[in-house]
Amino acid sequence: MGQAQVPTIGVGVLGMGTVGGQVAARLLESREAIRRRAGVDLEVKRVLVRDGAKPRAVELAEGVLTTDAASVLDDPAIGVVVEVIGGEEPARTYLERAIRAGKHVVTANKVVMAKHGPELLNLAAERNVDIYFEAAAGGGIPLISTFKVDLQANEIESIAAVINGTTNHMLTRMGRAGLTFEEALREAQAAGFAEADPTDDVGGFDARYKLAILASIAFRTPVHPDQIYCEGIEAIEPVDFRYAAELGYDIKLLAYAARTRGAVEARVHPAMVPLTHPLGQVEGAFNAVYIEGDLVGPVLLYGQGAGGRPTASAVIGDLIDLAVDIGRGVQHRPAPVFDSELRVLEMEEVVTRAYFRMHLADRAGVLAQIGQVFADEDVSISSAIQKEMFAERGTAEFVVTTHRASDRALQQTLRRVADLDSVAQVCSFLRVF
Amino acid sequence: MGQAQVPTIGVGVLGMGTVGGQVAARLLESREAIRRRAGVDLEVKRVLVRDGAKPRAVELAEGVLTTDAASVLDDPAIGVVVEVIGGEEPARTYLERAIRAGKHVVTANKVVMAKHGPELLNLAAERNVDIYFEAAAGGGIPLISTFKVDLQANEIESIAAVINGTTNHMLTRMGRAGLTFEEALREAQAAGFAEADPTDDVGGFDARYKLAILASIAFRTPVHPDQIYCEGIEAIEPVDFRYAAELGYDIKLLAYAARTRGAVEARVHPAMVPLTHPLGQVEGAFNAVYIEGDLVGPVLLYGQGAGGRPTASAVIGDLIDLAVDIGRGVQHRPAPVFDSELRVLEMEEVVTRAYFRMHLADRAGVLAQIGQVFADEDVSISSAIQKEMFAERGTAEFVVTTHRASDRALQQTLRRVADLDSVAQVCSFLRVF
Repeated sequence: MGQAQVPTIGVGVLGMGTVGGQVAARLLESREAIRRRAGVDLEVKRVLVRDGAKPRAVELAEGVLTTDAASVLDDPAIGVVVEVIGGEEPARTYLERAIRAGKHVVTANKVVMAKHGPELLNLAAERNVDIYFEAAAGGGIPLISTFKVDLQANEIESIAAVINGTTNHMLTRMGRAGLTFEEALREAQAAGFAEADPTDDVGGFDARYKLAILASIAFRTPVHPDQIYCEGIEAIEPVDFRYAAELGYDIKLLAYAARTRGAVEARVHPAMVPLTHPLGQVEGAFNAVYIEGDLVGPVLLYGQGAGGRPTASAVIGDLIDLAVDIGRGVQHRPAPVFDSELRVLEMEEVVTRAYFRMHLADRAGVLAQIGQVFADEDVSISSAIQKEMFAERGTAEFVVTTHRASDRALQQTLRRVADLDSVAQVCSFLRVF
Repeated sequence: MGQAQVPTIGVGVLGMGTVGGQVAARLLESREAIRRRAGVDLEVKRVLVRDGAKPRAVELAEGVLTTDAASVLDDPAIGVVVEVIGGEEPARTYLERAIRAGKHVVTANKVVMAKHGPELLNLAAERNVDIYFEAAAGGGIPLISTFKVDLQANEIESIAAVINGTTNHMLTRMGRAGLTFEEALREAQAAGFAEADPTDDVGGFDARYKLAILASIAFRTPVHPDQIYCEGIEAIEPVDFRYAAELGYDIKLLAYAARTRGAVEARVHPAMVPLTHPLGQVEGAFNAVYIEGDLVGPVLLYGQGAGGRPTASAVIGDLIDLAVDIGRGVQHRPAPVFDSELRVLEMEEVVTRAYFRMHLADRAGVLAQIGQVFADEDVSISSAIQKEMFAERGTAEFVVTTHRASDRALQQTLRRVADLDSVAQVCSFLRVF
């Protein structure tokens, strides 16, 4: 029997790195299976690379590789552009050009979607094309579709996530093997888990991009990364993990967003996470997102948030989804995603618990002084530990965790405690989840 | 400004129990929001109940409640039928009638979808309507859509799930509080977690229905519940939890399916699950499904697998999805879900690890005899523990776990060991995940 005639959709791929290579390989390998499932033929027409001479693991037909972006973006035979270059520019410009040319786009780009998602989505709606970006937050973990489809009957109440694999791997090593931040970073760099310039990961910026995307979709309101409080993991010391364990916690880089008093709260910072909470169990390079919806209650999604193959899984999932719609002849009119305009709280308005570790003069009356500062600021103490390990230097190490208070009050407490004569140093300040 | 004219879709709801009440309530409450998002108006036209006089928490308009199924199934103004009656009949007949009448259906019915899913999906494809059944497996956890959309680029390798809340709650209590099976069951019944006749849950049948649905979708081949090996939790004793903890495991009712040697392996039984595995951490009434795909690697989805609100979350998610498609004027032609026809392995062909607990005569040479049986059957021992607690009765308690072997060899070993004169009793046999 002959094969049924199905429409062919030309696919242009921008970028041929870790993700692009996997996308191209799987598209070629699965072309027939996709044709059967989607009812359309996805043909990789052109792949944009920086260096046309570089040898590639994937064998592409003559003339497919190009170093000329226009040959992808301006080719009317290309109906779908897959962007896996990463970074803000030229990726954003390419995406805009593709959309203006009436092409659907699939992107794995967290920076572009976090910073320019709302305007690109609007533009796409105008041009009657779709933007798919499942891979832009959480790699292969089905997050965007979960918010857009599965949980759409819910008001999302909060999102708590461990969403940067590099820092989670480093924190796991610091907690398990007692490495310092610097040692964990060097180890992660040697293993290829961290970049030569690790700022994006360890400073929390990568997690911030992803949280901006998730919060925008979940709360249906634009949340720009600049509106999200961001603090990295650089100041954490191995001893903090020992106290955390003693108190029943682990330390994670937490990305948290919630609907709070008619506004949105969104923040990225290291936090003590209870070992009894599913997020406290996320080890190594894994990511997890814990969502609370008003109907569904808590839902946890867990998997590999980065890497060529998991990211390609999301990109190709999007591509097939798009192909199915095209095969069914659907006129694309994406609903406006953002139907509300909520204020994003300043960090000082946020209410949270905290952990303080400080070195005190080892003399009478010190605890009373510190206790008075907490009392003055109306910050209630939940647990306290004093260890003798620094006694030989004439100081004692003192740890407290607090009940919930505004971050403003916690910061004010921090400043005032640090100013006390009897306090040699406040070594750590961490929020408690 | 006037409201844009949008099409109205009549919704008929079959059943007004825990789930139906929540579905009706949320549909009424969110009618305007859904209208905006989906571009169609979902109007609850009729709700089928058994007892029309019973007072209801949800206030429905005059004439909406009916005890006459035909008034829902034969009303041409009803475009979508939501079935939340549960059980095989009359639900299956109603669904078939609705589909034959050209209505889309949304169902939360695991029994019907597990036993009759393939034929209903085929019928729906013929009649050009859709069947949505996200709520039929795993309540509010987005499972069906994850397989159908997000992971569609993957070959699914395996599914391991803790997917029955009643048994997981009971096992958690047995492990934590040392309750016997009977005590845990009475407690669960008193708390409303278990039915008066608990067979469906404790015998593993509920989990088997859900696994049949998940395996069928994941492997794209019909897997009927009767093809799935099924064993309940009735034989587990509190002491097994102590050994499990000592060995680094917890005991869960495991639903497992995998693509194995060109066939499908599917089974439900209690199993020792490593505490280091995410499934080993699932406590109480929560459900979790651990999926491995060839591209994405491992993905875990976790949440409340049952209950009115979580299930309503999935049902209404499906309804809005359907409404969006109808609003976009999409001609429904669901792709055939099952494009392969894989054999389901017999349990004896399955390869797994196992745990044996037995009472031995406390005399010389016994261990050698037992060891010889394992050796004869080519079952290699991974760990062994002997405790003195039963020594006063002239017997010793002996526990072994094995390496991987065929279930046939494990069963043969079990029979032969039980037949030894020196073995008073084999008290427990559990698979190890």
